[in-house]
Amino acid sequence: MIGLGPGAAELMAPAVREELDRAQDIVGYTTYVEMAGPFRPDQRILDSDNRREMDRARLAFELAAQGRRVVVVSSGDPGVFAMATAVMEALDGASDPSWRTVDLAILPGISAAQATAARIGAPLGHDFCTISLSDNLKPWSQILLRLEHAALADFVIALYNPLSKARPWQLGEALELLRRHRAPETPVVLGRDVGRPDERVIATTLAEVRPEQVDMRTLVIVGSSLTRQFPRSDGGAWVYTPRWYPEAPRG
Amino acid sequence: MIGLGPGAAELMAPAVREELDRAQDIVGYTTYVEMAGPFRPDQRILDSDNRREMDRARLAFELAAQGRRVVVVSSGDPGVFAMATAVMEALDGASDPSWRTVDLAILPGISAAQATAARIGAPLGHDFCTISLSDNLKPWSQILLRLEHAALADFVIALYNPLSKARPWQLGEALELLRRHRAPETPVVLGRDVGRPDERVIATTLAEVRPEQVDMRTLVIVGSSLTRQFPRSDGGAWVYTPRWYPEAPRG
Repeated sequence: MIGLGPGAAELMAPAVREELDRAQDIVGYTTYVEMAGPFRPDQRILDSDNRREMDRARLAFELAAQGRRVVVVSSGDPGVFAMATAVMEALDGASDPSWRTVDLAILPGISAAQATAARIGAPLGHDFCTISLSDNLKPWSQILLRLEHAALADFVIALYNPLSKARPWQLGEALELLRRHRAPETPVVLGRDVGRPDERVIATTLAEVRPEQVDMRTLVIVGSSLTRQFPRSDGGAWVYTPRWYPEAPRG
Repeated sequence: MIGLGPGAAELMAPAVREELDRAQDIVGYTTYVEMAGPFRPDQRILDSDNRREMDRARLAFELAAQGRRVVVVSSGDPGVFAMATAVMEALDGASDPSWRTVDLAILPGISAAQATAARIGAPLGHDFCTISLSDNLKPWSQILLRLEHAALADFVIALYNPLSKARPWQLGEALELLRRHRAPETPVVLGRDVGRPDERVIATTLAEVRPEQVDMRTLVIVGSSLTRQFPRSDGGAWVYTPRWYPEAPRG
C-alpha cells in the first residue's frame, strides 16, 4: 500500500518509487495509476473507478495471497482519507485465512493538506484537525458536530472532500457554521491540484470565500483565531499559525 | 525550509535531498542536521540547540539576504509543530526589508503521526486532530479545552510532545480527561523514533497505557470510539479507524 504524495515525482518517497518498480500487479483508481506510471510491459495494471475501494482492496489481497507482488496505489497519504483504511477493513473482515499471511506494508506519502500548507506558509503550525465533508459514509449531523467542536476548540481546520456534483451544499453550510465562531478576516487557503501541473493556491478570508471557488480536488484550510496572513514580495500572501497561544483573560 | 521526514532516507522526498545537496549553509538543531548529513567540506554547518528556533530562523534569513543558498533543516514535516512556523514568524516580524526579498520555499516531509500510523495500519483514516501537549508556549487550560472538544467530537487524537523531563505530569492529566469520554478498550498507539534504527511501535489501550511508556520522542495516537484493533499474523496488532460512521440512534 503506497502513497504517491501530491503528484510531483520530486515529492514521492524513494521507498514508494522502489515498490512501484518492483510490483508485478498495480491496483488502483485509474487517475492515480496514471500518475504513478509509466510501467513496464511485464507489469499488470488493474485499475478501476473511484468508488470501488473495497473491490480494489479485496483484489489486492487475492493476488498477494496467490504469491503476486502487488502495489495498491493511493494519492497523497494512503492513511488520510484514502485506501489504507479500505485495505485494513478488507483484512479485518477477511473470510479467506490466506489473506492474513500476506506480507503487508504501508508506505506513507505527503498529504494534500501538507502540500497546500507548505506552498502558502505554515497554516498547520499549531493544533489542527482534519475533517472530510463527505457524508457518503457518515451522517451530516456528525460532521456538523465535529465542525462545531473544532470551532469551539479554536483548531485550524483542514477540510477534505469539500464539495462534489452530488454534494453541492455541504461546504456552504460548513462555512456558515464556522462564520458564527470566527472573525470575517480569518485566513482561508484553497489548494487545488497542488504538486501537479495545474496547481492553484489561493489565500482568502472566511468572509470572502465562496463555494464556487472550490471543487472536489480542492483542499480547504480555515485558520484559527490566531492564523495570520501577510504579503509576500511576489504579490501573493503567506499564511501561518503562530507557535504560541495567549493566556485567557482573567475574569 | 525542508522536512527530513521520520529519518529514513527512503522516506525523504527527492526534492529535499536535492536542496540539501545544493545548500551552501545548513541551519538546524544539531540532532536533525546530523540526520540530514553527511555534508561536503564546502558546505557550512550552523547547528544549534533545540530551543533556539527563532535564532535559527533569523540566522537563515540573514544569510539568505546576503545571497547565500541556505537550507533550514527540520525533522518530520516542517509545517507540523516544527521550524516552518518559526521561519514565518521571523519573516512576518522582519525589521530588515532585505529579508522580504529572500526566495523562500517550504518542502514538506512525512510527519511523525503519519509514519507511526503507517506502521500500525490506518488509525488516522477518519477525521482526526493533532494537538501538542507542550505548555511552553500555550496555556495548559487551552490544551485541556482542546482535548475536551476533541473527545466530544469523537476525533482520533494524535498527541505531539506528550512528555518531557520538564513537563512530567501533562500526559497523565490528558489521558485522565480522555478516559472520562472513551471506553477502556479504545486503541492507543505509541510510536517512538519511527523510521530510525531504534524504532518501536506499540499498540495498547486507553485503560492500559502508562505515561512511563512515553517520552519526548514518542508520538501518541488515541483512537475514536470506532477505532479497531485486530491481530496480525506476526503476533502484533493492526489498528485502523473505519471510513464509515454510524447514524446516531433515533430518540
